[in-house]
Order: sequence, then structure tokens, then C-alpha cells
Amino acid sequence: MAAGPRRPPQPTVGEVTSIRSPQVKAVRQLAKRAFRQQSRAFLAEGRQSVAEALRRPGVLTELFVTGPASSRCADLVRQAASQGAAVRTVSGQVMAELAQTVTPQGVLAVCRFVDVPLAELTAASPALVAVLANVRDPGNAGTVLRTADAAGAAGVVFADASVDPYNGKCVRSAAGSVFHLPVVAGSSLPAAAAALRAAGLRLLAADGSARHRLDDLESAGELGGPTAWLFGNESWGLPAELASLADDAVAVPIYGQAESLNLAAAAAVCLYASARAQRSAPGR
Amino acid sequence: MAAGPRRPPQPTVGEVTSIRSPQVKAVRQLAKRAFRQQSRAFLAEGRQSVAEALRRPGVLTELFVTGPASSRCADLVRQAASQGAAVRTVSGQVMAELAQTVTPQGVLAVCRFVDVPLAELTAASPALVAVLANVRDPGNAGTVLRTADAAGAAGVVFADASVDPYNGKCVRSAAGSVFHLPVVAGSSLPAAAAALRAAGLRLLAADGSARHRLDDLESAGELGGPTAWLFGNESWGLPAELASLADDAVAVPIYGQAESLNLAAAAAVCLYASARAQRSAPGR
Repeated sequence: MAAGPRRPPQPTVGEVTSIRSPQVKAVRQLAKRAFRQQSRAFLAEGRQSVAEALRRPGVLTELFVTGPASSRCADLVRQAASQGAAVRTVSGQVMAELAQTVTPQGVLAVCRFVDVPLAELTAASPALVAVLANVRDPGNAGTVLRTADAAGAAGVVFADASVDPYNGKCVRSAAGSVFHLPVVAGSSLPAAAAALRAAGLRLLAADGSARHRLDDLESAGELGGPTAWLFGNESWGLPAELASLADDAVAVPIYGQAESLNLAAAAAVCLYASARAQRSAPGR
Repeated sequence: MAAGPRRPPQPTVGEVTSIRSPQVKAVRQLAKRAFRQQSRAFLAEGRQSVAEALRRPGVLTELFVTGPASSRCADLVRQAASQGAAVRTVSGQVMAELAQTVTPQGVLAVCRFVDVPLAELTAASPALVAVLANVRDPGNAGTVLRTADAAGAAGVVFADASVDPYNGKCVRSAAGSVFHLPVVAGSSLPAAAAALRAAGLRLLAADGSARHRLDDLESAGELGGPTAWLFGNESWGLPAELASLADDAVAVPIYGQAESLNLAAAAAVCLYASARAQRSAPGR
């Protein structure tokens, strides 16, 4: 096959063949929050997350891809290289070491942190914000982030002892949304509440035992203004000292025998109630 | 300590000390669908699920409890014994063998199947039903069951190749709701669609790519009547041949950049839209 057509320039920078290579070790460390904080970097796994990261040039710094995936995801490999990211081909065995999922899709990226300061979020006059107060389950937190994105929220605050938004399972559950809307990480709940209130938002705490019912607020036209929703931890109640930071506590009504709603389901109902009300409010 | 006060009659029927005992083997087999089908029995783990099972006398047939849990859950142990269930004290080691969770709460029950025939559900003139069409993830299916319960639905149909409602993770995600409302297992989607339509329900397929938007239907007063929602598998789209079984396909609007909503979040928004509309519909 001499004198064949010249191959186009290959974006691949290197090949990682050993699971004991320093690159593999560096990536594996990013499974731990302390190492993520140190390098201000996290992992995005799978085609969808990588594609979303690439929509924000400068975020993706390193792309690992298996042979089969490099054909399947040739567009992503090209984009990553054109953004100056290091592209590394790896064996399936190395990918299995790097990935946190049992069936990795063969593509995984190291990304720079994308969170913003609280002041940046509030300066943009947000109309709808979700605040996670001590939400510990990464799947729940990621799902709320994805739902807030879908509902058109202007940002999500991971407050107090909430899970790290860059936790692998949180990033996966968010399905790309960590790259879509401003995320504030590591704020205290009182600081977030004060800043959001100063920015003109009404703070509503989602609380299954609250006296006010979501439907009644909606019917009374009270959900049309700028709103920040506070969601507590998985038992889906906010302790009194956190609930007191809100202007009102609101319950999603339970019409059946369930004791409560799952956190992510409750957040979906609340955020969509606000989205709907804000879009039908006079003056918008 | 002779001649002390007589101890009250103990409800405990037996003690299981070895992880190799036949009782342990029988319970462990219930982790598999085939064995569940054979014995028409399933496992309910944890205090909440056990308490909910006991609210339906005759459902709970066997209760396993550790020493510490038998003090903590003395009420449950008493109830189970009074319902004629076999109560067996086990060591923490045996409980760890029995339980499917990493941190079992020390109480676990064998329960009889509680699902009902499709005809029983439709005969009750249901106003709101959730139909799972090939929902494979047990966590998602259980969360939808819990949400349907909360939204006051009259039943949930696990159709076609959906996960078994008695799958351990599904039961746990449902947080007791499997005991709260009629569950139909193993129906084909066409049969369920025909029966629900014959019972006067409008069939709406939740489909992110549908032309009709949920908010528009709600504003137009079109959600007030008896409704069955069809929810597809995790990618949250119904294949055309299933969508064609519905009267209409409806999308939860996406206001942000998210590609779609998580299945359970979408179901929460749809079911609560119906619950709200039905409760404000004229004539109710």
C-alpha cells in the first residue's frame, strides 16, 4: 500500500497502554473530591457529556478514547484536538480502569471546573434558581440539576454539605447539564439565601409538611415572580433553622397514601410549577 | 433470677443462626424473578416497607429481624405475629446474607404478591393511571410508582418488558407504595391500552419530541378527564408502534438546554398536571 493517499493529520497526541501509567493514575485520582479540588478538574464520561463539554471551548483538557470509540466519536476527537486538548488512545482495559461506570462508552474527558461564584449568578438577575441544601445523594443532586436545566432555571446552588457537583455519579445523572447552566459550589446556605433575596428572589422551601400547598400558590398567581427553591436532603424535609431562611415553606400535595415524594420528583413538580407560572405571568 | 415476673408470650417462632439454613436459602432465592414467580412471594426490606405491608393483613408471611431491630421495631414484630406470620430472629451476619442493601435496617419480610388483574383495575373506574412501557430501570420504575401514589393515581400498570414490580430495588424505590395502590404486572401494552380506553380513559403518551405540550393541554382544560399516562423506557421516547396506541403524545416542555428529562422527573410533572387539573375540573 505504498503511495496511497496521504492520511489527514491525526489529532491523537499519545497512546496510553498500561494501567500503571501516570496518566491513568492522575485520572483515577479524580474520583476523589480532594484530588478534584486540588487540580480543579473532574471527569465527564460518555458521548453526551463529552459533547456538551466541547460546546464550551477551554473546558475539556484531556480526552481518552478507545479504538472503537475513536471511529464512532470521530467528530468529538476532532473537536477536542482543535480546542487544544490532549487526545489519548487507550485500550479497553485501560478505559475500564479510568471509567467509573461498569459499561463505559469508550470516551472520557478531563474537564476544568465550570462553577461560578455566587455573585456572578445573582448579578444576572436570575428568575428561577434551585438551591440544594445538604442533598447528599449524587444521583438525586444530578437529576435535580438536569431538571432545573430543563425547566429553564438560571442556576443551581450546591449549598452547605451537599454532594460535590463534580462527583462522577452526579455528573452522569445531570446528563450534560453541569455544562449548561451556572452552578455555584460550596456556598453556605445562609450566604446563598441572603444573596438571592438581595437579588429580588422570593425564597420558597420545598417541605412536605408545610402548610402552604403548591397548587394553592399557583392558583393564587403567587409563583410568577423570581423564585429560588430550597430543596433539603433526601428525607425531604428542611431542618427548622434552614427552613427559617426561606420566605415561605411550600408542600407538594400528597393525594394518595405515599408518605412523601422522592426529592428529585418533588423538585420537578416545584420547578415546573414556577416555570409555567413565570411564563404565563403578566408582563413577560 | 428465679421467681421473677413471668415474661409475656414471645411472638418469636424461631431463630435462624446459620447462613446455610434452608430459610436463608429460600429468602435469597427471592432475589431472582423466576423464584419469585414460582412462590408468588417477594421481599420487603426496612422498617417503612414492613410497616406498609402489615397494613394489609395476610400479605406478610414471614418476618426476619435482628436482635437490636426487634427492640426498635417491637410494634412490627407484635403485629406480624398477630397476623399469623412466622417471626424469626437472626444474627446480623444472617441479616446481611438476606438483605439486598448494604446497610440493612435489621428487618425484612417475605410478602405475598399483591398485584391485581387488569380487569380489576379498570372495573374501578380509575381517573388516573400510570402505564410503564418497557421501563427497565428498577429505581425509575419504583420512583414512578411512588410518585403515582403521591399524585393520587388509581393504579400502575407494569406492561410489556418493564422491570418486575417485585424487584428488590423497585420495591425499595417505591418506599411502600407497592402496598398502597393497585399494581398490574405482566400485561401487554396493547391489552392495557385497550382495556383502559374501554374504561373511558384518555391515553396520553409522554414523549419529549411530541408536538403537543403539556402546558398547552393544561391551559386548554384538556387534562381534567380520566387519563392514563404511558411512560416509555429510560431514553424516554416511545417507539412509534407503542406511541400509536395512545390517543395523543404530549411533551413536557424543555425551556433550557437539557436534551430531555429523566423518566421519573417527567412522570412527576405529567402525573401532577393531571392530578391538579382533575381536582379543579368542573363537576368534581
